[in-house]
Amino acid sequence: MLTLNSKSSFNDFDLMFNPKNVMIYEAKPKISFFVSGFIRQNFDLNNLYLVSPKLDSILDVKCIKSIDEIPAETIDLVILSVRRSILIETIEEILSKKIIKFFHIFTAGTGESDDVGIEIEKQLKKTLNRFGDTRAIGPNCMGLYSPKGKIAYYSSFPVESGNISLIFQSGDLHSKMVKFGSRRYDLKFSKGVSVGNCVDIQISELLSYFNEDIDTDIICVYQEGFSPFTKEEGKRLLCVMKKMKKPVLYMRGGKTLRGQTAVLTHTGAIATSKNIWKAIFKQTPAIEVKSSLDELIDYTYMFYKYFNYFKTSNKPIKYPENKRALVVLWSGGFGILATDTLTELGIDLPHFTGAALEKLKAIYPSKIGSLANPFDLPWVTSKREYLDVCKAAIDDNIDLVIVETDAWRDLESNHFKGYYHNLTEIKKHVESLNKVFTIILHEYPSESRKKFYAMLIADNYLVYPNIDIAAKSFLKLYEYGNKQKSL
Amino acid sequence: MLTLNSKSSFNDFDLMFNPKNVMIYEAKPKISFFVSGFIRQNFDLNNLYLVSPKLDSILDVKCIKSIDEIPAETIDLVILSVRRSILIETIEEILSKKIIKFFHIFTAGTGESDDVGIEIEKQLKKTLNRFGDTRAIGPNCMGLYSPKGKIAYYSSFPVESGNISLIFQSGDLHSKMVKFGSRRYDLKFSKGVSVGNCVDIQISELLSYFNEDIDTDIICVYQEGFSPFTKEEGKRLLCVMKKMKKPVLYMRGGKTLRGQTAVLTHTGAIATSKNIWKAIFKQTPAIEVKSSLDELIDYTYMFYKYFNYFKTSNKPIKYPENKRALVVLWSGGFGILATDTLTELGIDLPHFTGAALEKLKAIYPSKIGSLANPFDLPWVTSKREYLDVCKAAIDDNIDLVIVETDAWRDLESNHFKGYYHNLTEIKKHVESLNKVFTIILHEYPSESRKKFYAMLIADNYLVYPNIDIAAKSFLKLYEYGNKQKSL
Repeated sequence: MLTLNSKSSFNDFDLMFNPKNVMIYEAKPKISFFVSGFIRQNFDLNNLYLVSPKLDSILDVKCIKSIDEIPAETIDLVILSVRRSILIETIEEILSKKIIKFFHIFTAGTGESDDVGIEIEKQLKKTLNRFGDTRAIGPNCMGLYSPKGKIAYYSSFPVESGNISLIFQSGDLHSKMVKFGSRRYDLKFSKGVSVGNCVDIQISELLSYFNEDIDTDIICVYQEGFSPFTKEEGKRLLCVMKKMKKPVLYMRGGKTLRGQTAVLTHTGAIATSKNIWKAIFKQTPAIEVKSSLDELIDYTYMFYKYFNYFKTSNKPIKYPENKRALVVLWSGGFGILATDTLTELGIDLPHFTGAALEKLKAIYPSKIGSLANPFDLPWVTSKREYLDVCKAAIDDNIDLVIVETDAWRDLESNHFKGYYHNLTEIKKHVESLNKVFTIILHEYPSESRKKFYAMLIADNYLVYPNIDIAAKSFLKLYEYGNKQKSL
Repeated sequence: MLTLNSKSSFNDFDLMFNPKNVMIYEAKPKISFFVSGFIRQNFDLNNLYLVSPKLDSILDVKCIKSIDEIPAETIDLVILSVRRSILIETIEEILSKKIIKFFHIFTAGTGESDDVGIEIEKQLKKTLNRFGDTRAIGPNCMGLYSPKGKIAYYSSFPVESGNISLIFQSGDLHSKMVKFGSRRYDLKFSKGVSVGNCVDIQISELLSYFNEDIDTDIICVYQEGFSPFTKEEGKRLLCVMKKMKKPVLYMRGGKTLRGQTAVLTHTGAIATSKNIWKAIFKQTPAIEVKSSLDELIDYTYMFYKYFNYFKTSNKPIKYPENKRALVVLWSGGFGILATDTLTELGIDLPHFTGAALEKLKAIYPSKIGSLANPFDLPWVTSKREYLDVCKAAIDDNIDLVIVETDAWRDLESNHFKGYYHNLTEIKKHVESLNKVFTIILHEYPSESRKKFYAMLIADNYLVYPNIDIAAKSFLKLYEYGNKQKSL
């Protein structure tokens, strides 16, 4: 039977995400972003040791000349930034002086670079194996983000904590996920790791850890492949993924042959056989994200809002069981495209006719517009009948409600207030029925749009910039619910 | 042989887009947006007649009690907004008093609504046939936009004129195209028509007109189908489209069966046979836009910038003949996804190896990053070698250059200035070789992003929010070039 990497136990990574003390070796202006990350997260700077033979301070944080000046015997986390040619000897020297729990090896130019780099990774693997209790992420990675542990490698990362955790084989994409996700949709994260070339700590180990972590509800993975030094990782990953109790939004880089060529110069990872990936997406609750960071952020947003709604209302989570939508618009053309888009994606729009239509017409008798679904309701958005006709249409036949809206010039007008009241009541009604409610607010530069968007986000609306990604995000939730039932 | 609608000659529509006088009948506060459109476009308000039996003025524009108070014998454009039940008698009354060149029939609730409405359209068709020189757009449409003619139906439409013309069977989408297009990408329009149910003026006629219009270089069409009163329009459209000398970006609504059901309650149009559409996209230079307004805007932007570059530099236009891209990044992970995305879309990324790679390495010898394409060039974006290595890679093997960037905190720093100089020089170089240069700047709310974006747009960069739509837009240009050769 395949066992997990014998080096790790599940709670081993607590200290990595919550280090009591950290050393940066060697500290230099080029990597001052690390220091500003610690400052921003309010890490206790007395426990941040910047080792630099040359500098007195970086960003007003005092430097020390050598590791020997550190009083503690044990250092929880060492961020290592040295030239690759002295990487191994530096690690050995540090380990001869202190007990190190975790290395974050920032050093790049190793396995992804050339034969010399590959040889360095081999040596690194050997060295780390000799010191069994010391674990390492990297090399060639940006490192850690953990707002509860008060650590981040960029000052732009939010200090507020959430329930999304990230495992990314690209520091660039990891940073962008946090930056764009928090700014676009106000996403909040529990923990994030840019894992780099994965010479020691593997993605499967972090998945196991997050599966048990009470602060993690949703997990996102970006993976390019497997380190050539961990032959069993593919099978281990499959084994771990089968046991996941939480949604894992899984994005692969290097799916195409040409992409794999690019991966070799990025993390030096090996894609391994297609069969592993087929099995992961078929036999485990993994939710596949095809190939864009935007998609991953959009889907995560759906899961995030949905989970948090059930969490805050103390209800057991219930996934959508069908794919039937009601679309509500101010006017018609957008609804035709929406109908085509949803239909092509496999979402049904129940067509209201006969008795159902008559019931709705009794509420909204106007000849202008349409109640056939999409609802095309010009002129009445602020009125009681808008709310009533929408509520009347939302029953067990509907799983998703999409309202298209646009910026309003005057958020103080009675017209707007009536409309916003209607939106709020529809949202409440839809949520009380455990269905998904989303607003479409198109993206364009405008002060009034910006204000309205901020208002919607502050009031906990799920707001997408177009119907295509709203629908695709809903379908991922539906897919996960289905997998929960069938796997 | 099939002939064009005998009622029209090609320059007939000049007056519709440049009316010397306009009557709005009946003027009322609900449709004051029309009045604000005229005001915003600086239309001569002495020639704008608002007929209202009840009101003295709308938005400070004086109303008259009756059409009899208008001194002119001929009115170029009448915007008609009356209940459907009096539509026919109103038209007949107006035509008994004045010569009317064009009606814009805003009145809705006709063919898209019910049997009564369909009957009204039949009567309308008969009435207009009796007055052969009077033409009409609509019913059920928002009308006209023509900055040179100083007319618009919304005050939010730009007053500056451009070379994009629109024919839309949805007022809502027409408005959004102008609004989002102008705000996102600074698109400028020549003329736009929301045509509604097309009882009289047909899309084929407007296409013929725009084909000869010297102020139009690019045409966008959104069509849901054909009016039941114009049996020959499908064939006419095919015939006209075959003769088009300009790119027509064509988006159909109601492609799915469910979508067609929705169309019936929107414009009451009939989709006709699939064969007409197949023929149009296969046998004519039409460029198909699948099913989203965002896509249409993105593609139009590509054609717009490309055309305007050749126009302003007085060079004959040359379309991309191949699909080979160079991708330049600051860091790696995005490049892997970009490689997958481009490869899946059918765009090649030449993989630099051997002598080609050695040439590049002589310029950028660093072990960090990659020159294999995507270029992954950390730390050197402001330096001369960044510019040099990019220029060296762009030769006949490359048709599209994509540079991914992000917001900069300080647009006054030397670091930024060096980078921006590099971007500008790369842009010049790429354009001088008649290739496409595009910047990717991801979308997220941020003041620094907003400033940087505004700077890029002002400096005439082509900037997309993600690589997927940049690549798809490029492929449309490529497709059009190919069609030019083969049709």
